[in-house]
Parts: sequence; structure tokens; C-alpha cells
Amino acid sequence: MDTQNADIVDGVLQKIERTRQARRHKFYLRDEKVTLSHGSGGKATHNLIEGVFAPAFSNPLLDAMDDAATFHVDGQRLAFTTDTYVVSPLFFPGGDIGKLAVHGTINDLAMAGAEPLYLSAGFLLEEGFPIAELKRIVASMAEAAREAGVAIVTGDTKVVQRGKADGVFINTAGVGCVRASWLLGQTQLQPGDKVLLSGPIGDHGIAIMLARENLEIETDVESDTAPLHTLVAALLDAVGEGVHCLKDPTRGGVATALNEMALGSEVAIALDEHAVPVHAGVRGACEILGLDPLTIANEGKLLAIVAPERAETALSVLRNHSLGREASLIGTVQADPAGMVLLRTDIGGMRVLDMLVGDPLPRIC
Amino acid sequence: MDTQNADIVDGVLQKIERTRQARRHKFYLRDEKVTLSHGSGGKATHNLIEGVFAPAFSNPLLDAMDDAATFHVDGQRLAFTTDTYVVSPLFFPGGDIGKLAVHGTINDLAMAGAEPLYLSAGFLLEEGFPIAELKRIVASMAEAAREAGVAIVTGDTKVVQRGKADGVFINTAGVGCVRASWLLGQTQLQPGDKVLLSGPIGDHGIAIMLARENLEIETDVESDTAPLHTLVAALLDAVGEGVHCLKDPTRGGVATALNEMALGSEVAIALDEHAVPVHAGVRGACEILGLDPLTIANEGKLLAIVAPERAETALSVLRNHSLGREASLIGTVQADPAGMVLLRTDIGGMRVLDMLVGDPLPRIC
Repeated sequence: MDTQNADIVDGVLQKIERTRQARRHKFYLRDEKVTLSHGSGGKATHNLIEGVFAPAFSNPLLDAMDDAATFHVDGQRLAFTTDTYVVSPLFFPGGDIGKLAVHGTINDLAMAGAEPLYLSAGFLLEEGFPIAELKRIVASMAEAAREAGVAIVTGDTKVVQRGKADGVFINTAGVGCVRASWLLGQTQLQPGDKVLLSGPIGDHGIAIMLARENLEIETDVESDTAPLHTLVAALLDAVGEGVHCLKDPTRGGVATALNEMALGSEVAIALDEHAVPVHAGVRGACEILGLDPLTIANEGKLLAIVAPERAETALSVLRNHSLGREASLIGTVQADPAGMVLLRTDIGGMRVLDMLVGDPLPRIC
Repeated sequence: MDTQNADIVDGVLQKIERTRQARRHKFYLRDEKVTLSHGSGGKATHNLIEGVFAPAFSNPLLDAMDDAATFHVDGQRLAFTTDTYVVSPLFFPGGDIGKLAVHGTINDLAMAGAEPLYLSAGFLLEEGFPIAELKRIVASMAEAAREAGVAIVTGDTKVVQRGKADGVFINTAGVGCVRASWLLGQTQLQPGDKVLLSGPIGDHGIAIMLARENLEIETDVESDTAPLHTLVAALLDAVGEGVHCLKDPTRGGVATALNEMALGSEVAIALDEHAVPVHAGVRGACEILGLDPLTIANEGKLLAIVAPERAETALSVLRNHSLGREASLIGTVQADPAGMVLLRTDIGGMRVLDMLVGDPLPRIC
């Protein structure tokens, strides 16, 4: 780690250390075997992270627990992130595993305030997988990368025996150049900050569920998968240091993302349920299936936590971008009760909104 | 891509373009389904790369087809690489999947002349996998990273249903800072260059095979898995621009690595079989199993192609390092026949040494 990096890291070390303590207190791994819930992105995933990965790998960059790590290399601040994609089915309304693998990693870089530059692609193939389908997936990845202006520059292919994988899994890692000169992230929320959401939630998760289960629910719900880096660039250009945290509510949905932030910054977040946009098709499917749209995954939406005096500007910037037309102000950060998310419900009550518990919908991304 | 990077890339573009043409001519994908050979690292893998990935993702950085991509970000030259690890069994004499996942990616960065800095870790877990085993693997990764002085700074965990994976697969990607100011890589070989090998070959592949098959061959062969970055640093410090190419002969072994270089630089490589060190246990197992040690995977060895006048210095630097004590000069680069590797056999004959064809040993790493 170079000196400049060490300086920056030092500034948030104390907060990160307190967060670590809080997380250890909150998350406790009891399981003896891996369950599907450990891949949900919600509470069980955090239990696994805190019980296995975090103590073993602990270092200041990892401990920040943001979607991407940022560090300096010879004076240049970079962002670095990875995700493995295991979505089932491989093709679904609005996208496919290839598109998702490109967009998801671009978005994790963008949430760190970085301009996505280069991606890696690691393919894990099951023996017998049709080459024609692989070509379709690869063409879709290539198109997604081209459209987003990033290059896939390094890769790897492994094959395992029939029955030892499920068609194709894809890992992408990404490197970006951090353009924000200030610290962005889930330790940076301040009481008074406003919570903005870039558009309606739940489309991706519900599209996957309907595609997978062949449920006889007639909707036109499509995945919202999209690269958010140009939306982020517009926001950072206009609002600058007024942007305190960006997060794309993927696995675990908005509920989990906001809980992570509340915990990371030791603040509370009060959310207005009626202000959260949800497409009618998603709302209907959720009602039939007994799901909460706030815990459903999105692949083309972001949460932006902004200083109150910049909230209006931020909202109008989002709404002026094609990927943020339905953006809205959905809540406020407050000091207490630290580490919690409170939901003002449509019917006027107030309840605690927890992270996703269990996994209603495995292999969503 | 920034200007400086574009300049560097322009310098080798023509060569890369010729190599692409040669590769397309040489590798042709006929299969309709993925086979285990497509994961061998040998000829079938190249067929898949040329038939599916290379045309779709084509860009100058990827087309160089080195183990890591290198590029400039705001004036700093970086290396970026990825590998997914699917080795079976997960634990084997001399190592485990975790150690391999750290060493392998460190080595790919080192081969690009880079100092490895940061790794990502993407875990793909099968439902039901014991947490205790996962902890063992993670502890091994953490120890390997600590010993090598790199930090695992970002990660991801996915879980798939029982029977849809095989215990645990791990992807690591890595970012490093390129310390070599000249171009290193498989397009940089010159006729007259010497081929150095850092030590005996075949230990990793044979250790895996013996662990997996429960063959009743009594040997003490252990995987050679090791991080090669300090060996590379010593070599680059001493020999500088005299080092033209570094490559770790993993999947596909020395035979495949040398063929890739011969093709990449449009040169021939003449190899002396008797000069290639092979431990007695590996040689014995290969004889019994009908395998050629030159096609067996290594995880702690490197090939260095160096200018002839620096070969002696290079060899002594390698031999002075604990990971290169048995280094030897095993061959010479020559102009013709371009794109081929010739083997001077122990009994005095001369034959063409091809890449690994088929896959005698799937899931070696």
C-alpha cells in the first residue's frame, strides 16, 4: 500500500473498525453447511462473510465492505471489483447471463465513483454445453461491453464434467479509475442526507422468477439490467462532494442495501414506502407470491445518498438521464436508532425494515 | 485507452495482427458441444478461444493473448488477470484450491513483469458444502496471500443448488503494477534467445492425478505450487531488458507454453529434452501412465526467454533463489520453422513438439 493510500485509509479506519465490531455483533454464523441463503446477498450472506471471509482476509480495504475496493497505485486511485454470475435461466426477458456479467461489474465500479475501464471474464463451462449457446452469450457480453465503452482484456476458461456445474457460470472482475476526489461509500452517510432511488424496483428479480417458474402470471415484466456508469458520471459532475454514497440494490434489494449503509455509517434511515416506485406488474406478482419488492433484486437501479442541500439538483440530474427518468426521493438519514432502517408504511405505520432473510429466489444473478 | 497506452500498443499491433491470422489458421473449432478438452489449456482450449471468445471480444490488449493484460491508467502501467480454479480434489499433497487460487493469479501478474498488489476472490459454493472445509480453504488462501505480500480486497459469494457445482470453485483476479519499462510477452522472442526453465516439471499435475485416482504408485510427489513474483523481481532486476518473455507452464505444460510463444513471435524453439529437469517420481509416474512430462501442469515454475548474452547471468540469478535452485537452460530460439517447437530427444532424434492435444488430466487447477 503506498503512502497516499494509507493516508486516505487512515481517515476512515476508526469508523471501519467500529463497523466491524457492530457487524460481528449482528452477524453470527451458526450453520455447519452452506445453504442457498448464504448466496442470497441478505443476512445469511453477511453471516457467512463475517464468520468465514472477513476475519481471514481482514485488511482495511476489504473491511470497508463496499461493492468495489479502491486504492492508490503510484498516485492514481483505482477501483477493483468482482462478481460471479450463476443466474438461472441463462436467458430471460430483458437480458441474459452475459449482459448481466458485464453490467453488474460496471455498476460495482460506478458505485465507487469510478469510470469503468477494463473487465476480465472467467468462464466456467459444463461439459456438453452447446457451443451455439455459448456464442450467443459471448456475443451479448461483447455487445454490452461495446455499448458501455469498456474492453474485456483478459480471460480464462475452465470446463468441469457433466453434472458438476450448470451450463455456464461467468465471473467478471473490473478495474476502473476513481474520478471522485472525495470518499464515497457506505461509511459516509450523514444525518440529514437524502435517499434517492433512480427508478422502479423489483423488475429484475421478478422477471427471473417468472421466467424460471413458468408461473401463470401474465405480465410484461423485463429485467432492468443496464450499465449505470453514465448516470453516475452525470450525478458526480453535477453534485460533486454532495454525493456521499452510491449503491446498486442487487441481491437482497433496496432493504438490504439500505441496512448495509445504516450499519456502515452508524446511522438510521427512514424510508417512505409510498415514495418507492414499483411497476404495476412487479407489484402484482409480488402480491400473488407474497414477496416484498424492497427485498427483490435490481440490476439497473441505484441508491444515491446525497447532502440535503443538493438533493433537488441530484434528483433532477437523475430524471434527465434515460436510466433515471422515474427517480424519486424515498427517505432521509437520521442519527437514531443507529444501524437500523425504518419504514413508514403506505398505511401510515412505522416498522423496522430488515435485510433480506432467507432466499425466496436463489440464483438471481 | 490513454495516449501513452495507445502508443505502446501501436508498436506491437502489427505483430499481434499477424499472430491473430496465424492462430485463426491454426485453430479451428469444429465441436458443437463443450468437451473437457476445451478446459485443458492445450489445443482444444485454443480452438475454443479462437472460435468463440477472440472474435467477439477482440481488442489490442486481449489479442496479445498473454497471461495478463497490461495497460496504462493515467500514466501508470498496470497488469490485470483472472483465473477460475476448479481443481479436484480440493486438498492434495503440497496444497489446496485456496493456495492455488492465490499463487496462480500472482504468477500470471508476475509473468507480465508486474508486482502483484491486490486480488479479488469470487467463491462459487455448492449447497451442502461443509463450512469447516470452506474455513480451511479460506485460511489457506489468507496465509498464501500474507506470505506473498498481497491483499485480497474485494470478493463475492454465490451458492448454487446441490448437484449444480462440485463443492467449491474459486475465481481470483489480480491487479499489479508493471515494473518492467520494456515490453515483455509472447510476441517478444528473438532468434538466438535462450530458453530457461526455473526447475523440474510435472510435479503439480502428477500430484493431483495420484491424489485423485488413488493409483497405487508409491511416490512422494507434491504439488510445486508457489508464488513466483520474487523470483521474477530478482530476474528483472539483474537482467532488465534482456528478459523478453516470462511464462508459467501451467495447464498444457511446457510444451503448450513454448508453442504459444513460438506462434506469438513467429519463431521456432529448439528444445533439448535431456536438459529438462524432471524429478524421478514424476518421471516414473509418467512412464507408467503413458504421459509426457512436457505436457503436465506446473504451478511454481517459469520459463524465461532471455537475450543470449544475458543467459548466464539469468541462470545464476534463478539458481540463487530458493524457487529456482534447479533452473536450467533448456533450449534456443531460432528463426525457422516459424511457429513450431522442435524437440531434440534424449536418444538424439529431432521431432516436432505440439501443444497438449486432448486432456489426460481434467481439472488440474
